[in-house]
Amino acid sequence: MQELHATHYFCQRESAENFKYAEPIPGPSSDQFAQLAAELDIVIVASIFERRTAGIYHNTAVVLDGQRGIVGTYRKMHIPDDPDYYEKYYFTPGDYAPGQSGFEPIHTSVGKLGILICWDQWFPEAARLMSLAGAEILLYPTAIGWDKQDTETEQTKQLDAWLTVQRSHAIANGLPVAACNRTGFEPAEPQSSTDKNSGIQFWGTSFVVGPQGEILAQASSNEAAVVIAELDLSQNESVRQAWPYLRDRRIDAYAELLKRYRK
Amino acid sequence: MQELHATHYFCQRESAENFKYAEPIPGPSSDQFAQLAAELDIVIVASIFERRTAGIYHNTAVVLDGQRGIVGTYRKMHIPDDPDYYEKYYFTPGDYAPGQSGFEPIHTSVGKLGILICWDQWFPEAARLMSLAGAEILLYPTAIGWDKQDTETEQTKQLDAWLTVQRSHAIANGLPVAACNRTGFEPAEPQSSTDKNSGIQFWGTSFVVGPQGEILAQASSNEAAVVIAELDLSQNESVRQAWPYLRDRRIDAYAELLKRYRK
Repeated sequence: MQELHATHYFCQRESAENFKYAEPIPGPSSDQFAQLAAELDIVIVASIFERRTAGIYHNTAVVLDGQRGIVGTYRKMHIPDDPDYYEKYYFTPGDYAPGQSGFEPIHTSVGKLGILICWDQWFPEAARLMSLAGAEILLYPTAIGWDKQDTETEQTKQLDAWLTVQRSHAIANGLPVAACNRTGFEPAEPQSSTDKNSGIQFWGTSFVVGPQGEILAQASSNEAAVVIAELDLSQNESVRQAWPYLRDRRIDAYAELLKRYRK
Repeated sequence: MQELHATHYFCQRESAENFKYAEPIPGPSSDQFAQLAAELDIVIVASIFERRTAGIYHNTAVVLDGQRGIVGTYRKMHIPDDPDYYEKYYFTPGDYAPGQSGFEPIHTSVGKLGILICWDQWFPEAARLMSLAGAEILLYPTAIGWDKQDTETEQTKQLDAWLTVQRSHAIANGLPVAACNRTGFEPAEPQSSTDKNSGIQFWGTSFVVGPQGEILAQASSNEAAVVIAELDLSQNESVRQAWPYLRDRRIDAYAELLKRYRK
């Protein structure tokens, strides 16, 4: 599912009113999806504005696996804050506790899912940590779009960069990647009709790529769609044997990746 | 310049004979390029099979800057070893000494160059470490091509993956990236004419992309070319202000990037 699918994308404005959309996990939304996953015997990745306690709220993916109910959650680790995406106001970043929380794949009946959320998709570190922990697929619930005031050239560049950086995670790690994005226009203030141009044109284009970054399925930019692709996870291993990046990482020389800046 | 431009790509076979191509730095090749850089008042990035001492040989980029001569070297950090690319036999991996060798940009009169070589291009860690050390451009001397026995579909996938992963380094780090690749067919055994199909069809396609991964210039796959692009390095900062990934890296949660595998 796309990011924060239960509501409009309320992060276009900072307003304490919006905390009313937060809910616990388990809670009404996860219960509803758990029921659906059981009924259809499928795995669902839902995206929930999570109330962990008074004052701690997360942007959380919850995974429902058939009869098993909730099999794991992932709390968004990288939180953006840019004009129209005021997420640092709402979301506490996910915790890091090796083996427990942070970049930890979720084991399901269809494979080990490396679930990351939106802004995480721009960070090769996140994709790498998931693949090093055994993730077999990366999945990105997403809410990203255009500012209508940008030129068409700039809009094309942005969408292309978004596709490119995620395809690169597939390539660098030898696994499939899927992103599910919102689509359609959402005004900055849903209650008001004063400024029809102020808002985000979510660019859709949800996609699935294989372990060489090859596009297997892709939605259009302006229509809701169900994107279907068949994945053979055994390809991860044959691709990694042909392109053995994981063999050759210079872990003796990567220590400064843990610095903000090297100067 | 493309990777190991002074000779054919001798790594298609393991043969002690080929160590005769190695030379010191400074040495004949670097002297020649130093002279040319001074004469034309330009910066040249040359690629040399370096003899450091008896038994230690590197795949090294050397940077010549106008009248200043050699201003820095970079020794390839990630060494491949795959059918037709037997580089681990020839090249000792570059050393890591923070601030001295490893992923260290080279200061030149045209900017701080983050020089990486071929196989390095598949590792987001290398690109990140260079940008965190202040690199303003990434440059990849390269020798990569097709195996003629692969299908056209597979060949297209490989070239596309190569472009995609390098464009993603530009995007993730907000800086331009350029790659200079060999072109043309080189038989596995230049001295023999017995098997005309055994060899590498180097795929050219040398390119320059801007800090959003947008392609500014690109050569064809089968002809030698000079690729020219004008870069405004001040764009790095405006792009990074719009897409502030470096602000949001979770350095508190990246420790396990230093592991071979997290299990």
